[in-house]
Amino acid sequence: MGKRSKKTDEVDSKPAKRKSRKGRAKADDDGLLVGLDIGGTKLYAVVADSSGAVRGSARKKTRPQLGFEGVMGRALEVVAEACEDAKVPLEALRGVGVGAPSPMLPDGTAVNAPNLGWRNAPVGALLEGQLSRPVITANDCDAGTFGELVYGAGAGADTLVGLFMGTGLGGGIVIDGKPVCGENNMAAEIGHMVVVADGRRCGCGHRGCLEAYASKTGMGSYLRCQVACEGRETVLTELCDGDFGSLRSGALAKAYAEQDELAVEALHESARFLGIGVANLVTLLGPSVVVLGGGVMEALGKQLLPHVERAARASAFPPGTLKKTKICLAALGDDSVALGAVAWARQRLL
Amino acid sequence: MGKRSKKTDEVDSKPAKRKSRKGRAKADDDGLLVGLDIGGTKLYAVVADSSGAVRGSARKKTRPQLGFEGVMGRALEVVAEACEDAKVPLEALRGVGVGAPSPMLPDGTAVNAPNLGWRNAPVGALLEGQLSRPVITANDCDAGTFGELVYGAGAGADTLVGLFMGTGLGGGIVIDGKPVCGENNMAAEIGHMVVVADGRRCGCGHRGCLEAYASKTGMGSYLRCQVACEGRETVLTELCDGDFGSLRSGALAKAYAEQDELAVEALHESARFLGIGVANLVTLLGPSVVVLGGGVMEALGKQLLPHVERAARASAFPPGTLKKTKICLAALGDDSVALGAVAWARQRLL
Repeated sequence: MGKRSKKTDEVDSKPAKRKSRKGRAKADDDGLLVGLDIGGTKLYAVVADSSGAVRGSARKKTRPQLGFEGVMGRALEVVAEACEDAKVPLEALRGVGVGAPSPMLPDGTAVNAPNLGWRNAPVGALLEGQLSRPVITANDCDAGTFGELVYGAGAGADTLVGLFMGTGLGGGIVIDGKPVCGENNMAAEIGHMVVVADGRRCGCGHRGCLEAYASKTGMGSYLRCQVACEGRETVLTELCDGDFGSLRSGALAKAYAEQDELAVEALHESARFLGIGVANLVTLLGPSVVVLGGGVMEALGKQLLPHVERAARASAFPPGTLKKTKICLAALGDDSVALGAVAWARQRLL
Repeated sequence: MGKRSKKTDEVDSKPAKRKSRKGRAKADDDGLLVGLDIGGTKLYAVVADSSGAVRGSARKKTRPQLGFEGVMGRALEVVAEACEDAKVPLEALRGVGVGAPSPMLPDGTAVNAPNLGWRNAPVGALLEGQLSRPVITANDCDAGTFGELVYGAGAGADTLVGLFMGTGLGGGIVIDGKPVCGENNMAAEIGHMVVVADGRRCGCGHRGCLEAYASKTGMGSYLRCQVACEGRETVLTELCDGDFGSLRSGALAKAYAEQDELAVEALHESARFLGIGVANLVTLLGPSVVVLGGGVMEALGKQLLPHVERAARASAFPPGTLKKTKICLAALGDDSVALGAVAWARQRLL
């Protein structure tokens, strides 16, 4: 007992009585971390323990127009407020995990974040300088996928793929418990896998990317064409003020609930392509779990999941291989990137 | 020195004067292995040391009509002959690596080898029983890819993808030095990734698989359609006796050398699709090396490589990402599966 301090003994004998995310009480023996989700519209931070239980959180609008330093100033405030909410001093934290909408270099540089207007922005260095804590950064979809593996729908899996369908289609890949970032730190760009050679033009400039079909942008293309070229009607025209480029998941859910023919068609088309994307990832990587998240799946996951599964089954190779893969909805919702960043930082720091 | 035998000292003081595959002489301090390539047409075995230097080899026709036990009897003969050629007794070998044209379970069962007519064939158990050496099995394309990483064109890389274009399109994926087999042991079926949703029918029954375009089978479909439906002519009609389903790489090379218009078109189409497949793998996995092999690339690699690269560049995401990926031709040729099986067994046994 010589080397154990009184304090440690006390901690051992009085385990904290909080509940983890999964309802299991677990001693927090390896320290707390902050997870920071830098999004195009919101900044969100959580303080979490090793079981993924959120001790405190805070959020703010991003306001990208403030530029890199302005946004990062707000991010520092959000981190401080999350610590306050958790009643933990910043100094007690073991480190900070960050998810940002950009390919991230190992040194914490955000290479290109179009939603924020950043290029080669030193996210990690700035935070580390201001917070004096170790900072680990990740692409937001990579972090979200890893969060689902560690704390969410894929808990217990070793090899997992995540696809997040919203305005675009993001994704992440984890193999044998390790996120795949590629030698270029830009891998897992699942939305830009070509599934229709010479097909529909994608926002990235290429043709036939999965994102051009399986996303709100893809549905917008489909609807625009059906309304403008085929003269068809849909309640979505009114719900999005005639701008199919700005479809909201809530509007899609409303139109789906009303069984608006064209809206249902567009959603099922996106779900079918999402299934083709899932099939390709199963054919290539044989994951045990595929997690589907993002705004559209959060709003309509239950309704769309059977369509995704059917399409995946029709294309995954060898036939029958999907029996060994669980396709399910993401479980962490809004916390996914922040908790994923916590898990990511934990894997590297602790 | 007490525990070192005289024999060991002799070996230490008189290093063998053979050259390794790469021209480097290297002491074989961790033992020899046999690599066995079980193909649809030939059985081929090599005895190799840790540097990949081939000490001896042997080959025989497979004769699949003899059935599983008949073929395996011939495989045992080939292994014995390779040992004889290397002047090494079987007992001196550290183990046997096997590549077979089937998904392989970890226990050495070949799940389904259509070219051999095998289902759930106990390849590993039979060899281990007969040879009394440890046996490690792998899918042939996975082994071939791993061989290129360890001894071939990808030597030094950590993350590498291999695509082998012949009658079909096989492939393998290695991430961080470890082959990706998937939780179903059936991953890396690169030829069955969908690249044209609702496209051309593939031999597997699905639609739009890469193999339906980027393979001799794909070229056959293209040629058949152009000749039968469009009334076009090609020297290949005579070279393959009117059966575009049995195109040989040599015939394609001959027609290409003659600049036969339709043959050139078919080959460039396949190369373009191969490039789209490469792009998808780069977008998803960010490998440092992509190796292209197989009969067609062995015959026409130099001519087709620029077409593959151009198509890959046009579709890989983010744009410019290919700058960090080397696309090159396979280096091991006929030895690729057997040497890959050696490397695979070495990773697991030694």
